[in-house]
Amino acid sequence: MKTETSLINFESGISLESGYKLNSFDLMVETYGKLNEDKSNAVLVCHAFSGNHHAAGQDGDKVGWWDQIIGPGKSIDTDKYFVVCSNNLGGCSGSSGPSSINPDTQELYGKDFPAVSIVDWVVSQNMLTDHLGIKKWHMIVGGSIGGMQALQWAMMYPEKLNKAGIFAAATKSSSQNIAMNEVARESIRRDKNFYNGDYLKHEVKPKDGLKTARMLGHITYLSEKHMNEKFGRRFQDNDSKVDGNVDYQVENYLQYKGEKFSDSFDANSYILMTKAMDGYDASSIKKGNLEDALSLIQAELLIIGFETDWLYPPQRSKEIQIAAMNVNVKSSCVSLFGQQGHDSFLFASERYKNILKTFMESK
Amino acid sequence: MKTETSLINFESGISLESGYKLNSFDLMVETYGKLNEDKSNAVLVCHAFSGNHHAAGQDGDKVGWWDQIIGPGKSIDTDKYFVVCSNNLGGCSGSSGPSSINPDTQELYGKDFPAVSIVDWVVSQNMLTDHLGIKKWHMIVGGSIGGMQALQWAMMYPEKLNKAGIFAAATKSSSQNIAMNEVARESIRRDKNFYNGDYLKHEVKPKDGLKTARMLGHITYLSEKHMNEKFGRRFQDNDSKVDGNVDYQVENYLQYKGEKFSDSFDANSYILMTKAMDGYDASSIKKGNLEDALSLIQAELLIIGFETDWLYPPQRSKEIQIAAMNVNVKSSCVSLFGQQGHDSFLFASERYKNILKTFMESK
Repeated sequence: MKTETSLINFESGISLESGYKLNSFDLMVETYGKLNEDKSNAVLVCHAFSGNHHAAGQDGDKVGWWDQIIGPGKSIDTDKYFVVCSNNLGGCSGSSGPSSINPDTQELYGKDFPAVSIVDWVVSQNMLTDHLGIKKWHMIVGGSIGGMQALQWAMMYPEKLNKAGIFAAATKSSSQNIAMNEVARESIRRDKNFYNGDYLKHEVKPKDGLKTARMLGHITYLSEKHMNEKFGRRFQDNDSKVDGNVDYQVENYLQYKGEKFSDSFDANSYILMTKAMDGYDASSIKKGNLEDALSLIQAELLIIGFETDWLYPPQRSKEIQIAAMNVNVKSSCVSLFGQQGHDSFLFASERYKNILKTFMESK
Repeated sequence: MKTETSLINFESGISLESGYKLNSFDLMVETYGKLNEDKSNAVLVCHAFSGNHHAAGQDGDKVGWWDQIIGPGKSIDTDKYFVVCSNNLGGCSGSSGPSSINPDTQELYGKDFPAVSIVDWVVSQNMLTDHLGIKKWHMIVGGSIGGMQALQWAMMYPEKLNKAGIFAAATKSSSQNIAMNEVARESIRRDKNFYNGDYLKHEVKPKDGLKTARMLGHITYLSEKHMNEKFGRRFQDNDSKVDGNVDYQVENYLQYKGEKFSDSFDANSYILMTKAMDGYDASSIKKGNLEDALSLIQAELLIIGFETDWLYPPQRSKEIQIAAMNVNVKSSCVSLFGQQGHDSFLFASERYKNILKTFMESK
């Protein structure tokens, strides 16, 4: 599989939804496969909250987050399609974000990186689209917050995509979703090494807070049923405990996952990304009227929810379809079993693979 | 309503389930109403995780946690019944716990206070029962972890109660319950003022960690539906924000609740109490066989679950009843609507009040 990773600079800058203007910004982009001559085989993949541009293949010891779906002969077949994935603005994997240098001041952005929104991500990806010379994406697809991005794309630039795949997503975050994110943010902000967001200038990182935030995140990504099956109430063996306070296997799992994440992710990005998630409301483009908003769409939609997902359960997928049907937008909505709760969109089951393949290849 | 609050010392001490012995301990106890001559009108009320002995009436500006249920003419009618509520061992409202002085050393227990379990609470309350000269409780009742205590009582001292009320409870915590508690504990342990549990000796408190823990707790106490109705995605007015980082009303609510709690609760008690909750398994008394365990019961059971409760949903109540029925224990199981998620057991609806009153007065 031909893979290219590049950092693309946009000298024109971008005016953000908040009113703030970035005078210049970078997007870290990875592509798989080859763009055909008439540039009609391009697929844009949007990552979830803590994902990045590395969606497929192996980069050192890191397997792409959607490697089960993207690759030669896979559902998103890189022998046929040219697949593009970019790290969202505000992230921490190469695109401009709080841990980047502000080109205007030559200092770290840190806490001064402006608030970003899903709309801003779509606008920046549209600039990437022009940069790549692509007139129309064959499909734009993503899971979770990436699914929200695909939906927003279909409303904002209706003539620029044939199909949109909206998986494990919703038209907006619920009160409980916001509440969970606020607890995670609180644990970061209260970390002794947070320094009101200026930790990098102090050459430290709020790892403890980030760890707690991620532990909580992992609870929301797994279903209760899956957790009970995977861990139940089993005790952790003494010799494999990652922390002295651990009694149960589920505690060990969360400790391990949280610790690992806190080594690699940026705390300010965590706060920005969750705020973007909280703030999203698909109906905003038409003053709170969801049907009016969806009536902008020309693309065909594939909406998938996963039964074990309690972050954005299948009912939230159904809401998208019902509104779409009411305004004559062509859509299919499928509820799949999935064993991994919200994370199910990452894992390829036979049914999931077939549905996605059929959708991509339908005329 | 005649109310008495007293600190009762047990000089004989107690051997805990962990093997540790406390050579002496105190229980803070509150009683309402009068014990009749033949001591047949006593009701023991068991508090939930962060509750205490103050179950009814007004103490300064503090209304008892079950004041809607306990009082003259109420469901648990203090004109008829003598109601007793004690702060659990390991708590922080007067009973011996981490913030008490160890009588053996005359120093604060702090992190050295031993692990306690629901079994230990029942054993200590049985000592209280003897102290009060009560041979048989008319009813032992509680919600959440208090309901688990009532269930444990019915198995351990079957001849000492006529009725048991088990509300918003379960026979054991699920993997997800444990996971949530572990995130809360982690946020406390990582607080810069925790000092490995020795914060009182440093004359500080891990308030930030305790606040985050409680914010998370509040999400689990409220139903998603209730949260959506109460807060939705409404923004908080600028002039009533309790914290500069707040955007949404739900964030403000959690910030307010968390801050308030962190002023009053002890962090080591939080850790001990959640560990007791995690560790409970009703079937342990009979080597993991729930039906064998419940077959010990002589009392009549009233089991109530609340539809909006996702901590211990009604299905968990049903599990208790099914096992009880299989071993011929007399029981009623009711699923009530409740508007407050897990916390619904605290609030008196007409149906809830009537069911409880009828149960108490049935022969």
